[in-house]
Amino acid sequence: MKVGVLGATGYTGQELVRLLQQHPESELVYLGSSSSSGKSYEVMFPQFSDGRIGLLDDEEVPDLDVLFCALPHGLTAGRAAKWLERGIKVIDLGADFRIKNPETYESWYNCTHPAKEIIPQAVYGIPELYREEIKGKSLIANPGCYPTATLLALVPLFEKGLVSTKNVIIDAKSGVSGAGRSANLANNFSEVNENFKAYGVASHRHTPEIEQQLTLAANDEVLVNFTPHLVPMIRGILTTIYTELAPGVKEDDLLTCWQEYYAEEEFVHILPEGIWPQTKFASGSNHVFLQLKVDQRTNRAIIVSAIDNLIKGASGQAVQNMNLLWGLPENMGLEMRALWP
Amino acid sequence: MKVGVLGATGYTGQELVRLLQQHPESELVYLGSSSSSGKSYEVMFPQFSDGRIGLLDDEEVPDLDVLFCALPHGLTAGRAAKWLERGIKVIDLGADFRIKNPETYESWYNCTHPAKEIIPQAVYGIPELYREEIKGKSLIANPGCYPTATLLALVPLFEKGLVSTKNVIIDAKSGVSGAGRSANLANNFSEVNENFKAYGVASHRHTPEIEQQLTLAANDEVLVNFTPHLVPMIRGILTTIYTELAPGVKEDDLLTCWQEYYAEEEFVHILPEGIWPQTKFASGSNHVFLQLKVDQRTNRAIIVSAIDNLIKGASGQAVQNMNLLWGLPENMGLEMRALWP
Amino acid sequence: MKVGVLGATGYTGQELVRLLQQHPESELVYLGSSSSSGKSYEVMFPQFSDGRIGLLDDEEVPDLDVLFCALPHGLTAGRAAKWLERGIKVIDLGADFRIKNPETYESWYNCTHPAKEIIPQAVYGIPELYREEIKGKSLIANPGCYPTATLLALVPLFEKGLVSTKNVIIDAKSGVSGAGRSANLANNFSEVNENFKAYGVASHRHTPEIEQQLTLAANDEVLVNFTPHLVPMIRGILTTIYTELAPGVKEDDLLTCWQEYYAEEEFVHILPEGIWPQTKFASGSNHVFLQLKVDQRTNRAIIVSAIDNLIKGASGQAVQNMNLLWGLPENMGLEMRALWP
Amino acid sequence: MKVGVLGATGYTGQELVRLLQQHPESELVYLGSSSSSGKSYEVMFPQFSDGRIGLLDDEEVPDLDVLFCALPHGLTAGRAAKWLERGIKVIDLGADFRIKNPETYESWYNCTHPAKEIIPQAVYGIPELYREEIKGKSLIANPGCYPTATLLALVPLFEKGLVSTKNVIIDAKSGVSGAGRSANLANNFSEVNENFKAYGVASHRHTPEIEQQLTLAANDEVLVNFTPHLVPMIRGILTTIYTELAPGVKEDDLLTCWQEYYAEEEFVHILPEGIWPQTKFASGSNHVFLQLKVDQRTNRAIIVSAIDNLIKGASGQAVQNMNLLWGLPENMGLEMRALWP
Repeated sequence: MKVGVLGATGYTGQELVRLLQQHPESELVYLGSSSSSGKSYEVMFPQFSDGRIGLLDDEEVPDLDVLFCALPHGLTAGRAAKWLERGIKVIDLGADFRIKNPETYESWYNCTHPAKEIIPQAVYGIPELYREEIKGKSLIANPGCYPTATLLALVPLFEKGLVSTKNVIIDAKSGVSGAGRSANLANNFSEVNENFKAYGVASHRHTPEIEQQLTLAANDEVLVNFTPHLVPMIRGILTTIYTELAPGVKEDDLLTCWQEYYAEEEFVHILPEGIWPQTKFASGSNHVFLQLKVDQRTNRAIIVSAIDNLIKGASGQAVQNMNLLWGLPENMGLEMRALWP
Repeated sequence: MKVGVLGATGYTGQELVRLLQQHPESELVYLGSSSSSGKSYEVMFPQFSDGRIGLLDDEEVPDLDVLFCALPHGLTAGRAAKWLERGIKVIDLGADFRIKNPETYESWYNCTHPAKEIIPQAVYGIPELYREEIKGKSLIANPGCYPTATLLALVPLFEKGLVSTKNVIIDAKSGVSGAGRSANLANNFSEVNENFKAYGVASHRHTPEIEQQLTLAANDEVLVNFTPHLVPMIRGILTTIYTELAPGVKEDDLLTCWQEYYAEEEFVHILPEGIWPQTKFASGSNHVFLQLKVDQRTNRAIIVSAIDNLIKGASGQAVQNMNLLWGLPENMGLEMRALWP
Repeated sequence: MKVGVLGATGYTGQELVRLLQQHPESELVYLGSSSSSGKSYEVMFPQFSDGRIGLLDDEEVPDLDVLFCALPHGLTAGRAAKWLERGIKVIDLGADFRIKNPETYESWYNCTHPAKEIIPQAVYGIPELYREEIKGKSLIANPGCYPTATLLALVPLFEKGLVSTKNVIIDAKSGVSGAGRSANLANNFSEVNENFKAYGVASHRHTPEIEQQLTLAANDEVLVNFTPHLVPMIRGILTTIYTELAPGVKEDDLLTCWQEYYAEEEFVHILPEGIWPQTKFASGSNHVFLQLKVDQRTNRAIIVSAIDNLIKGASGQAVQNMNLLWGLPENMGLEMRALWP
Repeated sequence: MKVGVLGATGYTGQELVRLLQQHPESELVYLGSSSSSGKSYEVMFPQFSDGRIGLLDDEEVPDLDVLFCALPHGLTAGRAAKWLERGIKVIDLGADFRIKNPETYESWYNCTHPAKEIIPQAVYGIPELYREEIKGKSLIANPGCYPTATLLALVPLFEKGLVSTKNVIIDAKSGVSGAGRSANLANNFSEVNENFKAYGVASHRHTPEIEQQLTLAANDEVLVNFTPHLVPMIRGILTTIYTELAPGVKEDDLLTCWQEYYAEEEFVHILPEGIWPQTKFASGSNHVFLQLKVDQRTNRAIIVSAIDNLIKGASGQAVQNMNLLWGLPENMGLEMRALWP
């Protein structure tokens, strides 16, 4: 399988390179970059040097079986139709195909969608939730990191009607790598370390993505309060979610729902009672950790999920989607567990 | 003014020593410790050595004007009456006098309260909220770190009836120093760094303290969901609070309420629009930073506050209370701003 | 191949479990622990849970092909003879078999060596330096983390006589995981973060281990100044080494020596000119990064090496030794590159 | 005393503002900035807001008693003569006046010195070492951070001839704030955290500054190997220095030399035996911590010093110099001890 990565020098691009280097059925034949074309990837990133990775290429995509697009939003959609026509399967790690309604996309992303007509071809790619829809597709909208962590916790519960569609509060926390590989004073070590803050309050672009998939799961409109925060760590997302129980529902109903839904899933772990997710349980792996508790005093469920934002929240899930598309075991190249400590 | 610190080797004890070293009107004449009696404070903690701090003493408290008790809960209350009789003003940084209802205390702290009869003498010590009640008192219940950050944000709004007493969600994040100075594998650097987790879900002891003061402010029973999290940083607390607006209330009403309430307060900063609190704004100082926004889509206010957990959340507030008790300027010895970066 | 780990709950033990989980030719059939016998490994460490790891066992070692001993020094040597007699190959990650001279061991480790007579059976296990001696052996002394980083940089240069045996200064820096998984106030996050210090000055136990191997390489007595430091990070060792050049030797001679020595080595990277090792280049991998420069003004070479202390500095090298003993490709189970960022 | 800060938005500029806010004898009347002229300092940096700091001004310096220049090298020297003529005392935190020999400056800094003729008017400003020379001067060359940490350790020993002028090795480690407040990918949190590296090997510009002052102290030419490293922390410098003893000199001679030299110095601490400097002992303070040990096996002294790079290594020392110039107690505004933990 010949694969390529467009946007290979960013953090999700680097993580794709790292994972694909170890993937036994893929051959990494193309690394595209607008800014570093012609440079040696191994000299830029000696941590990956293995004598086999070639030079960074420009953005002229050669013939490939799969192209991963790790570009900022707006830069993939306009070119995707061309690649699909050439028979290249496209896995887009950006936002261009995640939102089904172009008006919603345009209002949250403040730009015109460059290829509305192919949005319907895209499938939202969380294998544990949408496996059957993904199979056989050619265009995958690889989900955002926050939506992945949120939806894996909530979709089963909403599908079963166990929690109210009102008053859904998602308080999320992410490591700094989520902000990408760029020179930005706000992400300078001296500004971030020993510091913690909220950002994008009531305005983060992952909000409509979460609402779209929860509305589908609940078959009822869901609005959420979503507040992301920046944690002084590199990797990891933890979401703390507050929801009201549907009438008559108890803590065990929620846990049973998860256990049944994820019984066959290698990457999803419902933790034993009293053990709560830590981002480092997931760090360096494609795994997801879940726990919940119902506060009897307020009849509200507190639900916590943890993932590695660059792996299950981006590049690992992209490789999992590739495996699924090609009928390979979903965990191929994704066997490694968390780097601990 | 002769002052002493009981529990001088813990982190709040150390911070009291550091602040009192610089305080122009206090003389630090007694450092008590059960575990390190007889040792040289300056050798144990060379970072504070100034040739003037004496040896650590045992727990036999000498005659003092003010005694700060930085002990685990349960170790202060039984001895406080005796000190008060001797004319020593007591500022307790532990939990023993914070909860007015002894049954509530005993149920959350799993122990018998050793001196129920003197609880009524204690005043809950946040000067910005309860200044007039504090003046002239002899026993101060210095508040918990999470309650300080929460109540400074919410009490003015509840007193004015601007937010609903239902559906109050407090998602709080703290640095590791809140766990105290102790050998504990869970706080080992290798377990904490590059990691983020929730703890004490639906069971943290600061819950009833927050509820007690909000209920007083609202004059109506308030129950909250309170979830603390551990951030891989040493100092700082940030709370993200979700509340519903009372009918007809708008964002500006909330902001105006804060601005009026805190117009004369040196330590409280309502940030300019669009600037959100960061814990490091407060780190190393006794200052508090506040911001809020109403999400029009859900009619819910997202309220954020930031403090240094060891200063405004503990030792700095204790010194502020001392200043208030003795009629000194409240900011004496507390002038230093955040260590930045 | 049936393998076991004694001391499976420490950080090097955990890292062995993680690596052996993914190793295609080994079956992890025994996890021994003195303190946690009978407990579920997957519940203690959910980050590794895969439904296949069994309970922690006591220290009665069953029949195995390979036993990894990740115990504090002094706890392995006395039992090793018994395991060797049973045909179990022993890879000791502790210090008991590293020092050939028992008096030297006893003087630096302040204890009596429990099994002097089998020290000669042990081989010092750095495959890149001692590959031929390791093959076919049954008892491997897996080197210390600092010696691994130091010797990979220096042994080729000393063997060729390119640097002086006098005035060798090794200034080394390690992440906190090197201190092991234990409750220790000195390693509490609040004591370590935003802090940097030297420790074990002129007294660290890795000194005689380094001197022994350099003396062998130089065929002349080598004494070194070795100063370790603690870096506020979890993983990684960087050594900065200062040596004097032998007469007539130039920078290129040193670089050529390295390039020839390591030409076939997958795990050793001599970086391009001007690029200096960073510990994170190695973090999460078994790889080693080297660079050097001769300061023309002082005629001294500044040599820098970086490894992951838990992988190439401990458990990864142990697996590499196992692969070498069993005639497997040395990189089996060790293919993963640095987790970056 | 009317004081101003040119370059007020950088990290040393911010630290000057923070310190001068609390300084009882100085009035901060001018904050100059080339990039942010006209902006509100309190809005840019709410952590310092006190209702009294005005707008950022341009670089037209008004009449002042003291001007602190916290600018990159090359931007101060050309204008200093003009300020001196107007009677403004100039404390330059940049490099322009540190190196007495303009050729040396030009060769290490790769630029033409813009005002060679006034270099002789400048005095190198470490009060503990050069107090008498500083008094009464109008132009202070505030030293670099690494030289401050190094020279406080070595100058007394060199003046007394206790260590050899040959084979001086300075292995130094700094927090990231030393790299300044700028958008730079290399200092992005994700690149720096959990990472450690050397930089500027055999080429760092603080080398000639150290050599100049050691040569003066020894009255003999001193060349050093100086290697700086980047530590994943914000503040702090630790130097580990290796020197050979002069004939007949013993460990106690070195310690006695320090003790006598610094007997009256409030900011210098020679630690008790067995306690080694940690950068956090100094962090947030103007204090310096020293320790040494002679390795009997190699007859070499290992000397360690620790400071806060932004305070004793920059802005705190600048305020100390100002106090000295104006006959104020040197510790005025610098009383605060380390923020711990």
